Amino acid sequence: MTMLTVLDTAALLRSYDNVLILTHVRPDGDTVGCAAGLCAGLRALGKRAFLLPNPGLTDSTQPYFAPFAASIDFMPDKVVSTDIATTGLFPENALPYAGCVDLAIDHHPSFERFGRHNLVRPEAAACGEVLYDVLAALGPITPEMALALYVAVSTDTGCFSYANTTAHTHAVAAALLRTGIDYKTVNKVFFRTKTRKRMQLEGAMLSGAEFYDHERIAILSVPLSLMARLDATESDAEELSSLGGQIAGVDCAITMRELRADVWKLSVRTGERVNATAVCQQLGGGGHAAAAGCTIQAPWAEAKARILAAIAQLVPDCAM
Amino acid sequence: MTMLTVLDTAALLRSYDNVLILTHVRPDGDTVGCAAGLCAGLRALGKRAFLLPNPGLTDSTQPYFAPFAASIDFMPDKVVSTDIATTGLFPENALPYAGCVDLAIDHHPSFERFGRHNLVRPEAAACGEVLYDVLAALGPITPEMALALYVAVSTDTGCFSYANTTAHTHAVAAALLRTGIDYKTVNKVFFRTKTRKRMQLEGAMLSGAEFYDHERIAILSVPLSLMARLDATESDAEELSSLGGQIAGVDCAITMRELRADVWKLSVRTGERVNATAVCQQLGGGGHAAAAGCTIQAPWAEAKARILAAIAQLVPDCAM
Repeated sequence: MTMLTVLDTAALLRSYDNVLILTHVRPDGDTVGCAAGLCAGLRALGKRAFLLPNPGLTDSTQPYFAPFAASIDFMPDKVVSTDIATTGLFPENALPYAGCVDLAIDHHPSFERFGRHNLVRPEAAACGEVLYDVLAALGPITPEMALALYVAVSTDTGCFSYANTTAHTHAVAAALLRTGIDYKTVNKVFFRTKTRKRMQLEGAMLSGAEFYDHERIAILSVPLSLMARLDATESDAEELSSLGGQIAGVDCAITMRELRADVWKLSVRTGERVNATAVCQQLGGGGHAAAAGCTIQAPWAEAKARILAAIAQLVPDCAM
Repeated sequence: MTMLTVLDTAALLRSYDNVLILTHVRPDGDTVGCAAGLCAGLRALGKRAFLLPNPGLTDSTQPYFAPFAASIDFMPDKVVSTDIATTGLFPENALPYAGCVDLAIDHHPSFERFGRHNLVRPEAAACGEVLYDVLAALGPITPEMALALYVAVSTDTGCFSYANTTAHTHAVAAALLRTGIDYKTVNKVFFRTKTRKRMQLEGAMLSGAEFYDHERIAILSVPLSLMARLDATESDAEELSSLGGQIAGVDCAITMRELRADVWKLSVRTGERVNATAVCQQLGGGGHAAAAGCTIQAPWAEAKARILAAIAQLVPDCAM
């Protein structure tokens, strides 16, 4: 196992051919954009390269993946993974490659260095930033590479709005846009479009939101009856727990999702005043200081009362 | 009246002292950030400079304006305007200066060159990009200038998500972030926070949305009763007309806002299939191809029926 620099990685890739590139389970824009960008980069060097098909692609990511998908009979000489922290995140069809990854490129602090060679840069907001530096060391960035990398960089930073965004992120975006790519469609698809069901789900959650403690605590609920009424799917309900935290003045947002009848998964997102983990630990859960969760088996009103009681007990200035 | 380059403008500003800087009516992040950034830049050169107080500041923009506000007895030698296309957009307290603006810096295509000297760059997404180039020509960009300019550039591009964003926009953002500013708070305040009432308003609009024409037409309504029930203000209801266009598959989003009892202002936002102006013209309104409006005096159901009929008549493949 060796750790590489960007220049080492570029030199190594120059020596490769017949490359299979892996993406992680439940693929997001970063893993797809990195893999597609690397694939385009290797092809620009005259090499054969393909992406291992990933069954988890969405309508948004599929168009950026499809041009590079491997057929079932592709026999690789080298295997590269992008944006995958651990082999535990390999999709099922990638598991045969878990012990023989030649090069792993990632940006997660929890990266497990499972490749024969590894490049990791934990300070990068998106793995796409790392891939940009690697591809720039290999030659000119083409629009084909740039479009894929823009998907990677923009999605992992919430279109440059998350706190992980850095000067390097913007410098990479500037270089990518200079190639003349259609970043407008990317922005529209990933940041300015939601499904009708998702919109109605958010609408119902916000309309029915309850506020406590001088409007600093918000409780948003997703009962099974709401999911059924909207005929909403799991993908319509992804990452709903960030919604409550966007309400001005709220520093403790609780999302109550009914998993089965009277079984509620509570996601707690907090500012500095409330320790989310301490609250959830009282109810058998856990997590981080600002994001934690727990599961309560009880009717909605009782589950709500329990989490509010846990907060009231832990937070000195809480007014309920 | 002369038109200046960036370098001309920098040279001219070097010759100024006791400078009053004007912002536009209903000030947004761009005009406030440009004015504050320029003020900080002039002060860094050892000059006296202030912003003319603007009564339209919001909770979001106020903190970036306040450190530079002029007292009532400041007597300027020079007057500069930033991000103001025409003297018609001067706040009332700026009207006495309408005929004696020494330098006007703007980025609107409709800029009316009302200054004695003028710098305009219509291809800039934000006027903040123009100010960045001017300040960079004057000396090093301090964090104080950079923070103000980041407010300008990020707000006028929807945090780099709007179609006006360019490689130059990202290059400027990279340079601003390199000074170590707290852009995270700016992003949180301007892009990741909404008032409780705004959230509930959007929630009710989305929950009650109606769909027609294979879900390509969405109608979102804001009756007076909803505004009253939420005790919502005009500022909670700003720019609601973009919401419907964010629903996947919708290419004709109609927002019906009740101005007075049974008087509805309709805002129509469309893709390429539907000409918004042609639709609204049938009902006595007008606008652009992708964004138009009209006012209908009728009960809600009838107003809705009229706009749908107008669309059905104009759009050949419309299924209603």
